[in-house]
Amino acid sequence: MITLWELKGRGGRPYSSFSWRTKMALRHKGLDYDSVPVPMSDKAAIAFSGGKTVPIIKDAQDGETRVIRDSWKIAEYLEEKYSDRPTLFGGAIGKGFAFTYNTWADRVLLPAMMPVIVADLYERIDPSDEAYFRQVFEGFLRSTLEEARERVPRAKERLSKILEPMQATLKRQPFVCGQMPAYGDYILFSIVQWARIASPQDIFNNSDPLHLWRERMLDLYDGFARNVPVA
Amino acid sequence: MITLWELKGRGGRPYSSFSWRTKMALRHKGLDYDSVPVPMSDKAAIAFSGGKTVPIIKDAQDGETRVIRDSWKIAEYLEEKYSDRPTLFGGAIGKGFAFTYNTWADRVLLPAMMPVIVADLYERIDPSDEAYFRQVFEGFLRSTLEEARERVPRAKERLSKILEPMQATLKRQPFVCGQMPAYGDYILFSIVQWARIASPQDIFNNSDPLHLWRERMLDLYDGFARNVPVA
Repeated sequence: MITLWELKGRGGRPYSSFSWRTKMALRHKGLDYDSVPVPMSDKAAIAFSGGKTVPIIKDAQDGETRVIRDSWKIAEYLEEKYSDRPTLFGGAIGKGFAFTYNTWADRVLLPAMMPVIVADLYERIDPSDEAYFRQVFEGFLRSTLEEARERVPRAKERLSKILEPMQATLKRQPFVCGQMPAYGDYILFSIVQWARIASPQDIFNNSDPLHLWRERMLDLYDGFARNVPVA
Repeated sequence: MITLWELKGRGGRPYSSFSWRTKMALRHKGLDYDSVPVPMSDKAAIAFSGGKTVPIIKDAQDGETRVIRDSWKIAEYLEEKYSDRPTLFGGAIGKGFAFTYNTWADRVLLPAMMPVIVADLYERIDPSDEAYFRQVFEGFLRSTLEEARERVPRAKERLSKILEPMQATLKRQPFVCGQMPAYGDYILFSIVQWARIASPQDIFNNSDPLHLWRERMLDLYDGFARNVPVA
Protein backbone atom coordinates (compact mmCIF):
# COMPACT_ATOMS: atom_id res chain seq x y z
CA MET A 1 0.00 0.00 0.00
CA ILE A 2 1.34 3.40 -1.04
CA THR A 3 0.76 6.64 0.87
CA LEU A 4 1.44 10.04 -0.75
CA TRP A 5 2.00 13.30 1.09
CA GLU A 6 1.07 16.33 -1.00
CA LEU A 7 0.04 19.98 -0.41
CA LYS A 8 -3.32 20.85 1.05
CA GLY A 9 -5.15 23.67 -0.75
CA ARG A 10 -8.33 25.49 0.15
CA GLY A 11 -11.45 23.44 -0.61
CA GLY A 12 -9.33 20.34 -1.21
CA ARG A 13 -7.48 21.82 -4.20
CA PRO A 14 -4.49 19.50 -4.79
CA TYR A 15 -2.18 22.19 -6.15
CA SER A 16 1.30 20.78 -5.57
CA SER A 17 3.02 20.76 -8.93
CA PHE A 18 5.68 18.22 -8.05
CA SER A 19 3.11 15.90 -6.48
CA TRP A 20 1.31 15.76 -9.84
CA ARG A 21 4.44 14.22 -11.35
CA THR A 22 4.23 11.50 -8.72
CA LYS A 23 0.46 11.04 -8.97
CA MET A 24 0.51 10.66 -12.75
CA ALA A 25 3.47 8.27 -12.45
CA LEU A 26 1.52 6.17 -9.94
CA ARG A 27 -1.49 6.06 -12.30
CA HIS A 28 0.81 5.20 -15.22
CA LYS A 29 2.06 2.24 -13.19
CA GLY A 30 -1.50 1.29 -12.20
CA LEU A 31 -0.71 1.78 -8.52
CA ASP A 32 -3.32 2.91 -5.98
CA TYR A 33 -2.40 5.24 -3.16
CA ASP A 34 -3.83 7.12 -0.19
CA SER A 35 -3.30 10.88 -0.19
CA VAL A 36 -2.31 12.84 2.92
CA PRO A 37 -2.67 16.59 2.21
CA VAL A 38 -0.56 18.80 4.48
CA PRO A 39 -0.28 22.59 4.64
CA MET A 40 2.92 23.92 3.08
CA SER A 41 4.04 25.47 6.36
CA ASP A 42 3.52 22.32 8.44
CA LYS A 43 7.05 20.94 8.32
CA ALA A 44 6.46 18.82 11.45
CA ALA A 45 3.96 16.69 9.54
CA ILE A 46 6.60 15.57 7.06
CA ALA A 47 9.69 15.60 9.31
CA PHE A 48 9.64 11.77 9.27
CA SER A 49 10.81 11.95 5.65
CA GLY A 50 14.04 13.72 6.52
CA GLY A 51 13.08 16.62 4.23
CA LYS A 52 10.91 19.70 4.09
CA THR A 53 9.03 19.28 0.85
CA VAL A 54 6.41 17.05 -0.76
CA PRO A 55 5.88 14.77 -2.58
CA ILE A 56 6.83 11.95 -0.26
CA ILE A 57 5.70 8.37 -0.68
CA LYS A 58 5.67 5.51 1.78
CA ASP A 59 5.52 2.11 0.16
CA ALA A 60 4.72 -0.69 2.61
CA GLN A 61 4.59 -4.26 1.39
CA ASP A 62 5.90 -7.70 2.29
CA GLY A 63 6.96 -6.44 5.71
CA GLU A 64 9.22 -3.76 4.21
CA THR A 65 8.52 -0.02 4.37
CA ARG A 66 10.29 2.46 2.13
CA VAL A 67 10.02 6.24 2.41
CA ILE A 68 11.13 8.23 -0.65
CA ARG A 69 10.96 11.96 -1.14
CA ASP A 70 11.59 14.19 -4.19
CA SER A 71 9.53 13.61 -7.32
CA TRP A 72 12.53 12.58 -9.41
CA LYS A 73 13.74 10.04 -6.86
CA ILE A 74 10.21 8.70 -6.54
CA ALA A 75 9.98 8.24 -10.31
CA GLU A 76 13.30 6.39 -10.30
CA TYR A 77 12.08 4.20 -7.43
CA LEU A 78 8.75 3.37 -9.08
CA GLU A 79 10.42 2.53 -12.38
CA GLU A 80 12.84 0.15 -10.73
CA LYS A 81 10.55 -1.39 -8.13
CA TYR A 82 7.62 -1.84 -10.52
CA SER A 83 9.63 -2.70 -13.62
CA ASP A 84 7.02 -5.25 -14.72
CA ARG A 85 4.45 -2.46 -15.15
CA PRO A 86 4.23 0.17 -17.94
CA THR A 87 7.54 2.01 -18.23
CA LEU A 88 7.91 5.68 -17.27
CA PHE A 89 11.22 6.18 -19.10
CA GLY A 90 11.51 3.45 -21.71
CA GLY A 91 15.11 2.62 -20.82
CA ALA A 92 18.40 4.40 -20.16
CA ILE A 93 18.22 6.97 -22.97
CA GLY A 94 14.64 7.89 -22.14
CA LYS A 95 15.58 8.25 -18.48
CA GLY A 96 18.52 10.47 -19.37
CA PHE A 97 16.29 12.65 -21.54
CA ALA A 98 13.67 12.75 -18.77
CA PHE A 99 16.28 14.12 -16.36
CA THR A 100 17.32 16.73 -18.93
CA TYR A 101 13.70 17.72 -19.49
CA ASN A 102 12.98 17.76 -15.75
CA THR A 103 15.86 20.17 -15.26
CA TRP A 104 14.57 22.49 -18.00
CA ALA A 105 11.05 22.37 -16.57
CA ASP A 106 12.20 23.21 -13.04
CA ARG A 107 14.66 25.93 -13.97
CA VAL A 108 12.95 27.58 -16.94
CA LEU A 109 9.28 26.72 -17.21
CA LEU A 110 8.25 26.65 -13.55
CA PRO A 111 9.84 30.04 -12.73
CA ALA A 112 8.13 31.47 -15.83
CA MET A 113 4.73 30.12 -14.80
CA MET A 114 4.98 31.21 -11.18
CA PRO A 115 4.58 34.99 -11.62
CA VAL A 116 1.56 34.39 -13.87
CA ILE A 117 -0.39 32.43 -11.26
CA VAL A 118 1.11 33.18 -7.86
CA ALA A 119 -1.33 35.91 -6.79
CA ASP A 120 -4.29 33.74 -7.77
CA LEU A 121 -2.76 30.76 -6.02
CA TYR A 122 -2.45 32.76 -2.81
CA GLU A 123 -6.25 32.92 -2.67
CA ARG A 124 -6.53 29.13 -2.92
CA ILE A 125 -3.99 27.86 -0.40
CA ASP A 126 -4.82 26.60 3.06
CA PRO A 127 -5.52 29.66 5.27
CA SER A 128 -2.88 28.50 7.76
CA ASP A 129 -0.25 28.91 5.01
CA GLU A 130 -0.88 32.55 4.15
CA ALA A 131 1.98 34.17 6.05
CA TYR A 132 4.45 31.44 5.10
CA PHE A 133 3.42 31.51 1.43
CA ARG A 134 3.79 35.27 1.22
CA GLN A 135 7.24 35.08 2.77
CA VAL A 136 8.51 32.32 0.45
CA PHE A 137 7.07 33.61 -2.81
CA GLU A 138 7.64 37.31 -2.23
CA GLY A 139 11.26 36.40 -1.58
CA PHE A 140 11.42 34.48 -4.83
CA LEU A 141 9.63 37.20 -6.80
CA ARG A 142 11.41 40.09 -5.10
CA SER A 143 8.07 41.85 -5.08
CA THR A 144 4.77 41.68 -3.25
CA LEU A 145 2.05 39.37 -4.52
CA GLU A 146 0.02 42.47 -5.37
CA GLU A 147 2.85 43.83 -7.53
CA ALA A 148 3.15 40.41 -9.15
CA ARG A 149 -0.51 40.56 -10.11
CA GLU A 150 0.03 43.88 -11.86
CA ARG A 151 2.84 42.34 -13.87
CA VAL A 152 0.83 39.34 -15.04
CA PRO A 153 0.44 40.54 -18.66
CA ARG A 154 4.21 40.79 -19.06
CA ALA A 155 4.73 37.48 -17.28
CA LYS A 156 2.26 35.83 -19.64
CA GLU A 157 4.16 37.11 -22.67
CA ARG A 158 7.35 35.67 -21.29
CA LEU A 159 5.66 32.36 -20.51
CA SER A 160 4.34 32.17 -24.09
CA LYS A 161 7.87 32.48 -25.43
CA ILE A 162 9.16 29.78 -23.09
CA LEU A 163 6.34 27.46 -24.17
CA GLU A 164 6.75 28.12 -27.90
CA PRO A 165 8.99 25.08 -28.57
CA MET A 166 6.48 22.88 -26.73
CA GLN A 167 3.66 24.26 -28.89
CA ALA A 168 5.74 23.45 -31.98
CA THR A 169 6.57 19.96 -30.70
CA LEU A 170 3.00 19.09 -29.78
CA LYS A 171 1.77 20.30 -33.14
CA ARG A 172 3.78 17.52 -34.72
CA GLN A 173 3.58 14.68 -32.19
CA PRO A 174 0.77 14.01 -29.69
CA PHE A 175 2.91 13.73 -26.55
CA VAL A 176 6.23 15.01 -25.19
CA CYS A 177 7.36 11.37 -25.18
CA GLY A 178 6.08 10.61 -28.69
CA GLN A 179 2.94 8.65 -29.54
CA MET A 180 2.05 7.75 -25.94
CA PRO A 181 2.34 9.67 -22.66
CA ALA A 182 5.21 8.90 -20.32
CA TYR A 183 7.16 10.65 -17.60
CA GLY A 184 8.12 13.66 -19.74
CA ASP A 185 4.45 14.39 -20.24
CA TYR A 186 3.86 14.20 -16.50
CA ILE A 187 6.67 16.71 -15.94
CA LEU A 188 5.11 19.24 -18.30
CA PHE A 189 1.61 18.42 -17.09
CA SER A 190 2.56 19.01 -13.46
CA ILE A 191 3.21 22.68 -14.20
CA VAL A 192 0.17 23.11 -16.43
CA GLN A 193 -2.07 21.41 -13.86
CA TRP A 194 -0.59 23.60 -11.12
CA ALA A 195 -1.77 26.62 -13.13
CA ARG A 196 -5.18 25.07 -13.78
CA ILE A 197 -5.76 24.50 -10.06
CA ALA A 198 -4.24 27.79 -8.90
CA SER A 199 -5.70 30.27 -11.33
CA PRO A 200 -8.89 30.94 -13.33
CA GLN A 201 -6.83 32.58 -16.08
CA ASP A 202 -6.69 30.95 -19.49
CA ILE A 203 -3.06 30.09 -20.11
CA PHE A 204 -3.74 28.68 -23.59
CA ASN A 205 -5.99 29.45 -26.53
CA ASN A 206 -8.40 26.66 -27.47
CA SER A 207 -6.58 26.02 -30.74
CA ASP A 208 -3.14 25.76 -29.11
CA PRO A 209 -1.39 22.40 -29.46
CA LEU A 210 -0.72 22.68 -25.72
CA HIS A 211 -4.43 23.07 -25.01
CA LEU A 212 -5.25 19.98 -27.06
CA TRP A 213 -2.43 18.05 -25.40
CA ARG A 214 -3.72 19.11 -21.94
CA GLU A 215 -7.14 17.77 -22.89
CA ARG A 216 -5.54 14.44 -23.79
CA MET A 217 -3.73 14.43 -20.44
CA LEU A 218 -6.91 15.26 -18.53
CA ASP A 219 -8.66 12.34 -20.24
CA LEU A 220 -6.06 9.81 -19.08
CA TYR A 221 -6.91 7.23 -16.43
CA ASP A 222 -10.67 7.89 -16.51
CA GLY A 223 -10.28 11.66 -16.09
CA PHE A 224 -8.07 11.23 -13.04
CA ALA A 225 -6.55 14.73 -13.26
CA ARG A 226 -9.66 16.41 -14.68
CA ASN A 227 -11.96 15.58 -11.79
CA VAL A 228 -10.34 17.56 -9.01
CA PRO A 229 -11.32 20.92 -7.47
CA VAL A 230 -9.79 23.65 -9.63
CA ALA A 231 -9.72 27.43 -9.62
CA MET B 1 28.08 2.80 -49.21
CA ILE B 2 26.78 6.06 -47.76
CA THR B 3 27.42 9.50 -49.26
CA LEU B 4 26.80 12.69 -47.25
CA TRP B 5 26.29 16.16 -48.69
CA GLU B 6 27.29 18.90 -46.23
CA LEU B 7 28.37 22.55 -46.37
CA LYS B 8 31.76 23.56 -47.71
CA GLY B 9 33.63 26.08 -45.58
CA ARG B 10 36.85 27.96 -46.26
CA GLY B 11 39.93 25.77 -45.73
CA GLY B 12 37.74 22.67 -45.54
CA ARG B 13 35.92 23.80 -42.39
CA PRO B 14 32.89 21.48 -42.08
CA TYR B 15 30.65 24.02 -40.43
CA SER B 16 27.13 22.75 -41.15
CA SER B 17 25.41 22.34 -37.81
CA PHE B 18 22.70 19.98 -39.00
CA SER B 19 25.23 17.84 -40.84
CA TRP B 20 27.03 17.25 -37.53
CA ARG B 21 23.89 15.59 -36.20
CA THR B 22 24.04 13.21 -39.15
CA LYS B 23 27.80 12.65 -38.96
CA MET B 24 27.73 11.81 -35.25
CA ALA B 25 24.74 9.54 -35.83
CA LEU B 26 26.65 7.73 -38.59
CA ARG B 27 29.67 7.27 -36.28
CA HIS B 28 27.34 6.09 -33.48
CA LYS B 29 26.04 3.43 -35.86
CA GLY B 30 29.58 2.55 -36.94
CA LEU B 31 28.82 3.50 -40.54
CA ASP B 32 31.43 4.90 -42.93
CA TYR B 33 30.55 7.56 -45.44
CA ASP B 34 32.01 9.76 -48.16
CA SER B 35 31.55 13.50 -47.70
CA VAL B 36 30.61 15.85 -50.55
CA PRO B 37 31.02 19.46 -49.38
CA VAL B 38 28.96 21.98 -51.36
CA PRO B 39 28.73 25.77 -51.07
CA MET B 40 25.57 26.94 -49.34
CA SER B 41 24.49 28.92 -52.40
CA ASP B 42 24.94 26.02 -54.86
CA LYS B 43 21.38 24.71 -54.89
CA ALA B 44 21.93 22.98 -58.26
CA ALA B 45 24.41 20.58 -56.63
CA ILE B 46 21.74 19.21 -54.31
CA ALA B 47 18.65 19.57 -56.52
CA PHE B 48 18.66 15.76 -56.96
CA SER B 49 17.47 15.51 -53.34
CA GLY B 50 14.28 17.43 -53.99
CA GLY B 51 15.27 20.01 -51.37
CA LYS B 52 17.48 23.03 -50.86
CA THR B 53 19.38 22.18 -47.69
CA VAL B 54 21.94 19.73 -46.39
CA PRO B 55 22.45 17.23 -44.85
CA ILE B 56 21.45 14.73 -47.50
CA ILE B 57 22.51 11.12 -47.52
CA LYS B 58 22.49 8.57 -50.30
CA ASP B 59 22.59 4.99 -49.12
CA ALA B 60 23.34 2.51 -51.90
CA GLN B 61 23.40 -1.17 -51.12
CA ASP B 62 22.05 -4.47 -52.44
CA GLY B 63 20.99 -2.78 -55.66
CA GLU B 64 18.79 -0.28 -53.84
CA THR B 65 19.55 3.44 -53.56
CA ARG B 66 17.83 5.67 -51.02
CA VAL B 67 18.17 9.46 -50.84
CA ILE B 68 17.09 11.07 -47.55
CA ARG B 69 17.31 14.72 -46.60
CA ASP B 70 16.73 16.57 -43.30
CA SER B 71 18.78 15.58 -40.26
CA TRP B 72 15.76 14.33 -38.31
CA LYS B 73 14.50 12.15 -41.16
CA ILE B 74 18.01 10.81 -41.65
CA ALA B 75 18.24 9.88 -37.95
CA GLU B 76 14.89 8.09 -38.19
CA TYR B 77 16.07 6.27 -41.30
CA LEU B 78 19.38 5.19 -39.78
CA GLU B 79 17.70 3.98 -36.59
CA GLU B 80 15.23 1.84 -38.53
CA LYS B 81 17.52 0.61 -41.30
CA TYR B 82 20.43 -0.19 -38.98
CA SER B 83 18.40 -1.39 -36.02
CA ASP B 84 20.97 -4.10 -35.24
CA ARG B 85 23.58 -1.42 -34.47
CA PRO B 86 23.82 0.84 -31.37
CA THR B 87 20.56 2.68 -30.88
CA LEU B 88 20.26 6.45 -31.37
CA PHE B 89 16.96 6.79 -29.50
CA GLY B 90 16.62 3.77 -27.23
CA GLY B 91 13.01 3.09 -28.23
CA ALA B 92 9.75 4.98 -28.66
CA ILE B 93 9.96 7.20 -25.54
CA GLY B 94 13.56 8.15 -26.26
CA LYS B 95 12.64 8.97 -29.84
CA GLY B 96 9.71 11.12 -28.68
CA PHE B 97 11.99 12.98 -26.27
CA ALA B 98 14.61 13.38 -29.01
CA PHE B 99 12.03 15.06 -31.23
CA THR B 100 11.02 17.36 -28.37
CA TYR B 101 14.66 18.21 -27.70
CA ASN B 102 15.39 18.69 -31.40
CA THR B 103 12.54 21.20 -31.59
CA TRP B 104 13.87 23.15 -28.59
CA ALA B 105 17.39 23.14 -30.03
CA ASP B 106 16.26 24.42 -33.43
CA ARG B 107 13.83 27.04 -32.18
CA VAL B 108 15.57 28.30 -29.04
CA LEU B 109 19.24 27.36 -28.88
CA LEU B 110 20.26 27.73 -32.51
CA PRO B 111 18.71 31.21 -32.89
CA ALA B 112 20.47 32.22 -29.65
CA MET B 113 23.85 30.93 -30.85
CA MET B 114 23.62 32.47 -34.29
CA PRO B 115 24.08 36.18 -33.40
CA VAL B 116 27.09 35.24 -31.26
CA ILE B 117 29.02 33.59 -34.09
CA VAL B 118 27.55 34.78 -37.37
CA ALA B 119 30.02 37.58 -38.08
CA ASP B 120 32.94 35.24 -37.39
CA LEU B 121 31.36 32.52 -39.49
CA TYR B 122 31.10 34.90 -42.44
CA GLU B 123 34.89 35.02 -42.56
CA ARG B 124 35.09 31.23 -42.76
CA ILE B 125 32.54 30.33 -45.42
CA ASP B 126 33.35 29.48 -49.01
CA PRO B 127 34.09 32.79 -50.83
CA SER B 128 31.44 31.97 -53.44
CA ASP B 129 28.82 32.09 -50.66
CA GLU B 130 29.52 35.58 -49.36
CA ALA B 131 26.67 37.47 -51.05
CA TYR B 132 24.16 34.69 -50.43
CA PHE B 133 25.19 34.29 -46.79
CA ARG B 134 24.88 38.01 -46.13
CA GLN B 135 21.42 38.08 -47.69
CA VAL B 136 20.13 35.09 -45.71
CA PHE B 137 21.57 35.94 -42.32
CA GLU B 138 21.08 39.69 -42.44
CA GLY B 139 17.44 38.92 -43.19
CA PHE B 140 17.25 36.63 -40.20
CA LEU B 141 19.08 39.04 -37.90
CA ARG B 142 17.35 42.16 -39.24
CA SER B 143 20.73 43.85 -39.06
CA THR B 144 24.01 43.85 -40.91
CA LEU B 145 26.69 41.36 -39.92
CA GLU B 146 28.77 44.29 -38.70
CA GLU B 147 25.97 45.43 -36.38
CA ALA B 148 25.60 41.85 -35.20
CA ARG B 149 29.26 41.82 -34.23
CA GLU B 150 28.79 44.90 -32.08
CA ARG B 151 25.95 43.17 -30.26
CA VAL B 152 27.90 40.01 -29.48
CA PRO B 153 28.31 40.75 -25.74
CA ARG B 154 24.56 41.02 -25.28
CA ALA B 155 23.96 37.96 -27.48
CA LYS B 156 26.41 36.00 -25.33
CA GLU B 157 24.53 36.93 -22.16
CA ARG B 158 21.31 35.73 -23.71
CA LEU B 159 22.96 32.50 -24.89
CA SER B 160 24.25 31.85 -21.37
CA LYS B 161 20.73 32.04 -20.00
CA ILE B 162 19.40 29.68 -22.66
CA LEU B 163 22.19 27.21 -21.86
CA GLU B 164 21.77 27.40 -18.08
CA PRO B 165 19.48 24.34 -17.79
CA MET B 166 21.96 22.34 -19.88
CA GLN B 167 24.80 23.39 -17.56
CA ALA B 168 22.71 22.23 -14.60
CA THR B 169 21.82 18.96 -16.29
CA LEU B 170 25.38 18.13 -17.32
CA LYS B 171 26.63 18.90 -13.84
CA ARG B 172 24.56 15.96 -12.62
CA GLN B 173 24.72 13.48 -15.48
CA PRO B 174 27.50 13.07 -18.03
CA PHE B 175 25.38 13.22 -21.18
CA VAL B 176 22.07 14.70 -22.37
CA CYS B 177 20.89 11.11 -22.83
CA GLY B 178 22.16 9.92 -19.44
CA GLN B 179 25.24 7.82 -18.85
CA MET B 180 26.14 7.35 -22.52
CA PRO B 181 25.88 9.66 -25.53
CA ALA B 182 23.00 9.22 -27.95
CA TYR B 183 21.09 11.32 -30.44
CA GLY B 184 20.17 14.06 -27.93
CA ASP B 185 23.86 14.67 -27.37
CA TYR B 186 24.44 14.92 -31.10
CA ILE B 187 21.66 17.52 -31.35
CA LEU B 188 23.27 19.72 -28.70
CA PHE B 189 26.76 19.01 -30.00
CA SER B 190 25.83 20.05 -33.53
CA ILE B 191 25.25 23.61 -32.36
CA VAL B 192 28.29 23.71 -30.09
CA GLN B 193 30.49 22.31 -32.85
CA TRP B 194 29.07 24.84 -35.31
CA ALA B 195 30.29 27.57 -32.93
CA ARG B 196 33.67 25.89 -32.50
CA ILE B 197 34.26 25.76 -36.26
CA ALA B 198 32.79 29.19 -36.98
CA SER B 199 34.30 31.34 -34.27
CA PRO B 200 37.48 31.72 -32.21
CA GLN B 201 35.45 33.04 -29.26
CA ASP B 202 35.26 30.99 -26.10
CA ILE B 203 31.62 30.14 -25.59
CA PHE B 204 32.29 28.30 -22.31
CA ASN B 205 34.52 28.67 -19.28
CA ASN B 206 36.89 25.76 -18.69
CA SER B 207 35.06 24.76 -15.50
CA ASP B 208 31.62 24.75 -17.16
CA PRO B 209 29.81 21.40 -17.23
CA LEU B 210 29.16 22.14 -20.91
CA HIS B 211 32.87 22.55 -21.57
CA LEU B 212 33.64 19.22 -19.91
CA TRP B 213 30.79 17.56 -21.82
CA ARG B 214 32.10 19.01 -25.09
CA GLU B 215 35.51 17.51 -24.34
CA ARG B 216 33.83 14.11 -23.85
CA MET B 217 32.03 14.55 -27.15
CA LEU B 218 35.22 15.55 -28.96
CA ASP B 219 36.91 12.41 -27.62
CA LEU B 220 34.27 10.09 -29.09
CA TYR B 221 35.09 7.83 -32.03
CA ASP B 222 38.85 8.44 -31.87
CA GLY B 223 38.52 12.21 -31.82
CA PHE B 224 36.32 12.20 -34.91
CA ALA B 225 34.87 15.66 -34.27
CA ARG B 226 38.00 17.11 -32.66
CA ASN B 227 40.27 16.61 -35.62
CA VAL B 228 38.71 18.94 -38.15
CA PRO B 229 39.75 22.44 -39.26
CA VAL B 230 38.27 24.91 -36.79
CA ALA B 231 38.28 28.67 -36.35
